[in-house]
Amino acid sequence: MFESAELGHEVDKASYREEALRLREALLTAQLDLKQRGEFPVVIILAGVPAAGKGETANLLTEWMDPRHIATHAFGAPTDEEAARPPFWRFWRVLPEKGTIGILFGGWYADPLWHWDDWDEPRLARRIERIVRLEKMLADEGALVFKFWLHLSRDKLRQRLKALEGDTRTAWRVTREDKRFLKEYDQRIEQCRELLTRTNLADAPWRVIEGWDTNYRNLSVAGQIHDAIMHQLGRETVSQNRVDAAPLVHSIDGVRLLDTLQLEHSMTKARFKDRLELAQGRLNGLMREVAQRKLAVVAVFEGMDAAGKGGAIRRITAALDARQYRVVPIAAPTDEEKAQPYLWRFWRHLPPHGRLAVFDRSWYGRVLVERIEGFASHAEWMRAYNEINDFEAQLVDAGTIVIKFWLAIDSDEQLRRFKEREATGYKRFKITDEDWRNREKWDDYVDAASDMIERTNTPYAPWHQIGANNKYHARIAVLDALCDAIEQRLKQED
Amino acid sequence: MFESAELGHEVDKASYREEALRLREALLTAQLDLKQRGEFPVVIILAGVPAAGKGETANLLTEWMDPRHIATHAFGAPTDEEAARPPFWRFWRVLPEKGTIGILFGGWYADPLWHWDDWDEPRLARRIERIVRLEKMLADEGALVFKFWLHLSRDKLRQRLKALEGDTRTAWRVTREDKRFLKEYDQRIEQCRELLTRTNLADAPWRVIEGWDTNYRNLSVAGQIHDAIMHQLGRETVSQNRVDAAPLVHSIDGVRLLDTLQLEHSMTKARFKDRLELAQGRLNGLMREVAQRKLAVVAVFEGMDAAGKGGAIRRITAALDARQYRVVPIAAPTDEEKAQPYLWRFWRHLPPHGRLAVFDRSWYGRVLVERIEGFASHAEWMRAYNEINDFEAQLVDAGTIVIKFWLAIDSDEQLRRFKEREATGYKRFKITDEDWRNREKWDDYVDAASDMIERTNTPYAPWHQIGANNKYHARIAVLDALCDAIEQRLKQED
Repeated sequence: MFESAELGHEVDKASYREEALRLREALLTAQLDLKQRGEFPVVIILAGVPAAGKGETANLLTEWMDPRHIATHAFGAPTDEEAARPPFWRFWRVLPEKGTIGILFGGWYADPLWHWDDWDEPRLARRIERIVRLEKMLADEGALVFKFWLHLSRDKLRQRLKALEGDTRTAWRVTREDKRFLKEYDQRIEQCRELLTRTNLADAPWRVIEGWDTNYRNLSVAGQIHDAIMHQLGRETVSQNRVDAAPLVHSIDGVRLLDTLQLEHSMTKARFKDRLELAQGRLNGLMREVAQRKLAVVAVFEGMDAAGKGGAIRRITAALDARQYRVVPIAAPTDEEKAQPYLWRFWRHLPPHGRLAVFDRSWYGRVLVERIEGFASHAEWMRAYNEINDFEAQLVDAGTIVIKFWLAIDSDEQLRRFKEREATGYKRFKITDEDWRNREKWDDYVDAASDMIERTNTPYAPWHQIGANNKYHARIAVLDALCDAIEQRLKQED
Repeated sequence: MFESAELGHEVDKASYREEALRLREALLTAQLDLKQRGEFPVVIILAGVPAAGKGETANLLTEWMDPRHIATHAFGAPTDEEAARPPFWRFWRVLPEKGTIGILFGGWYADPLWHWDDWDEPRLARRIERIVRLEKMLADEGALVFKFWLHLSRDKLRQRLKALEGDTRTAWRVTREDKRFLKEYDQRIEQCRELLTRTNLADAPWRVIEGWDTNYRNLSVAGQIHDAIMHQLGRETVSQNRVDAAPLVHSIDGVRLLDTLQLEHSMTKARFKDRLELAQGRLNGLMREVAQRKLAVVAVFEGMDAAGKGGAIRRITAALDARQYRVVPIAAPTDEEKAQPYLWRFWRHLPPHGRLAVFDRSWYGRVLVERIEGFASHAEWMRAYNEINDFEAQLVDAGTIVIKFWLAIDSDEQLRRFKEREATGYKRFKITDEDWRNREKWDDYVDAASDMIERTNTPYAPWHQIGANNKYHARIAVLDALCDAIEQRLKQED
């Protein structure tokens, strides 16, 4: 959920000035149009780690827009009046009316995060269910619901608190609670991740923004609000090159999750052979234990064309007996599959206990190729993130180890491999016109894959991004990660 | 949930023959059309109390339709293959494809009912959440999902099991499990009610059918399937006089929940005065305890025009100090209220701890007048049942006692009161043209109110149907029920 918001996004001063001027005017126009039409309200929830800029963001929005039609609400300890009524009463009383904008600090998320440790799971689950229902109702009533999570990595949070404390003018802003958050950062962030994943609705998705650089934060938040209001008003969005709606993970500074991955590694063929033998032996032993414990394994391979999925998969299967595994290649759905919900064709190939199923491409096609090519509607691929998370949770609950690989190469490497395939007789079947067409949509795929990793990188079914310009390295990295994941799960059984 | 299915519905032989012939042909035509269009699948879940006719219903549907495009699936103990995969795998493998019909015995509801006592609440909640998500996904994918609950009251179940056991040809059909269900009937039915309420989705509502009379059951089930398929295919439904979609509670024999209520009672004025004094004293005492315990009370009044809501409310408020209560009359929403989600105008009037709020008409307008007059769309009022149940659950969780009254008079009594109002100077303000217009829609209101009571009669916020042809009786019955409800809640506090 937070991967893209730890990349060190920045926008330089000159670009900011220019863009801010333009955006500010556009946002004001959108707001006035919203008010004039009076057809739906806009609810903006600002949440996030401490000192990530929630207050500054609220101030910015109020400053940039007409203050008569935008109001900010913070929720401290309940007032007497509030305490005497159901917990959500305080939110209902400040809901913005149609045509207006309400900014809610923390909104209905502050409570569950605050009480995460002292509420038991049924209570927490009930509250989360109520939040989901409330947002569903708001969306059904036509409200535009923004949920911004302003994020800082642990290091950045430490730096920020230190800087604030070091200046007498700002030291008062650092609370004891902020320091506690920093101290318990890993644990607290896991709670946040769980809450965000469980409340990441198709109609009201979380928008995670890195809170470090003010310029980047301002343009990201204001830009997304502008685009979505314009979209809802039925106008063209400012970002022209989007098919359907605003992208989920904005990258206004051109820095994207997948762009930051190290792609080059060195590994000689000899070293590869040594390590391969070791890793395959290890996998073979582990799979026998998997069978004994009645567990199962699902390995998912995604990546750009020619990223080396097939080669990595063959190094896995070579370690196993043919009865232990099944490779499921996913191409376009058959007629029979088209006549079913899209997850159906994956359910039918789930491995029984003791087996490994390797998916060469997978259910993630819904949020990659189907999203990009428009085979799935915006609503369809937006709800797919939740459906997929739920699907994988069911697998894990039933004793399946789920591991997902994104094999990453850069555009030059892909070109080199495409040309090599065309030149090599026995590889020529691997390259088609479609591959060349997909290559032209490289950037769309990077956007979609970044969203995908952000929104489906769950603790129970994590993504492994593997730099794969060097095939040897990639194959070993895949085998090692697979073995580690199995080993970790087996340890839990002990 | 089961109120309408304990009324002793029956269809006589001659009517059945005629109607069955017509319906059978219509259903077959609908099925062939469904197949030819191939646009969506139909999932029929048959659940219910034992011996209520699930098997017979499946047989009937298969017999009436083209068996090539309809399949029935039962789920016993999981097979080896099923046990080695996630619990829902067995359902995914039998989902009907577009254009076809799948009948699922018990479907995904058999498991939670079976394990209700041995699963803990988090596990149960997780499973229910998965069911809700599965059905939401099916609906989003365009599937038509029927969930039939075939119901028998305890007496009828006892009779049915006795009859089956008494005949050597059918005695084998009565299992030990069936007998256990009868023995633990009340407790089991409460579990069923909770499960149904928690899974009663706008896109996939439960349809509860009395299972006693075969003729009634057959026509009800087949009729609803036919109407909904035709509706989904975009054609006119067979039942002509419906505005939007098939009604939720069919009453093909003309017997409706509200029609069966006893409306006449005798109570003299003298007796009324005695009892009134007693009841008002009791209420006054109880409200003081309510304040001490930091509880609150919400009393909702609904009913036909001139049913005596105002009179009953005045007998409540007369018992109290003006600071203890507030009467909230609900008319058409103001502009400000229209600019908010429909529940907003009720949230704002919730009583704080220690107070009583009396709603003279209420949020139920959404599923009564707004449904009937078309002020709310079909989707809007269908989702309102859940939103209302959730709203009331929030009140109860926060220490509010919620009690709901439906004051019932018959059409003759209403006419008498209307005329009396017109004739009496000081009552003339109470009668308007709108009252006369509403009167013409009497039957629509009875249908809508029956649906409403069925779907919102929760254990935590029950409906009280009060026969109100005799005003004295009604006022005392209201006061007594209110006092009982408060007393019961106070006892839980001890």
